Amino acid sequence: MEFVALDKLIDDLYREKNKILSKKLEQYSLGNGQFQILNEIAWNDGISQEKISEIRMINKSATAKSVKRLIDKGYIFKERDEKDKRAYCLHCTEKGKQMIPKIRDIVNARESLLSKNIDEKEIKLFKALCQKMYGNLREQLK
Amino acid sequence: MEFVALDKLIDDLYREKNKILSKKLEQYSLGNGQFQILNEIAWNDGISQEKISEIRMINKSATAKSVKRLIDKGYIFKERDEKDKRAYCLHCTEKGKQMIPKIRDIVNARESLLSKNIDEKEIKLFKALCQKMYGNLREQLK
Repeated sequence: MEFVALDKLIDDLYREKNKILSKKLEQYSLGNGQFQILNEIAWNDGISQEKISEIRMINKSATAKSVKRLIDKGYIFKERDEKDKRAYCLHCTEKGKQMIPKIRDIVNARESLLSKNIDEKEIKLFKALCQKMYGNLREQLK
Repeated sequence: MEFVALDKLIDDLYREKNKILSKKLEQYSLGNGQFQILNEIAWNDGISQEKISEIRMINKSATAKSVKRLIDKGYIFKERDEKDKRAYCLHCTEKGKQMIPKIRDIVNARESLLSKNIDEKEIKLFKALCQKMYGNLREQLK
């Protein structure tokens, strides 16, 4: 077999996976970044913008931009945090709530597509190896 | 173990991997995209811009932009293709040639870092699974 770098394999997978997502999201006029944030809010109602940046490891200004777009499109709204007056909690609007089952379908379909014809044991090992590689990278960045 | 989506694992790996690369490239004032293209030319002297787009699966205008930057920085130059007068072949300049061993070091160091503490058999399986997943995605995009 020809030598293929891990690096290129990860790049290709990432790029192709996002192409499919973009295609599915076109009908809702949602970008990939906005989708990820809406997905976070769908699973964690009331989550803060800062927490989303942290979980998704996206910088704060990119998160702020996507949050603004989601508000403008009527998918979410923000509310001042009762405990920390400088922070905001994010919630889904009615329109956003109607998106939740669709989001879950998209997320599940993507997982099923990725793991198609691959047995559970291999998927488990694949995930463990991703985490190990991620750990190696984090170790270096320290 | 908490459920972690394949999707998120791939995203995290991709993002972290690129962070490390950006850090290493700062000293050469090279962006990640430019590095990938310079790397392609380093391995395939005389390759065309179109071929690079195809291999790296980056759109043509993004490739053209990075190629222009690499020319402006004095790393590469282009030459009209003798066989196809509409196409250009890309070559490394002296400065670019001096970058080649450094590029190979960066590429090798990244591969070693990713696969640190993971045995060869697991890396082989990981690569095969990446290719299988990629195949699943491509099948869907048809």
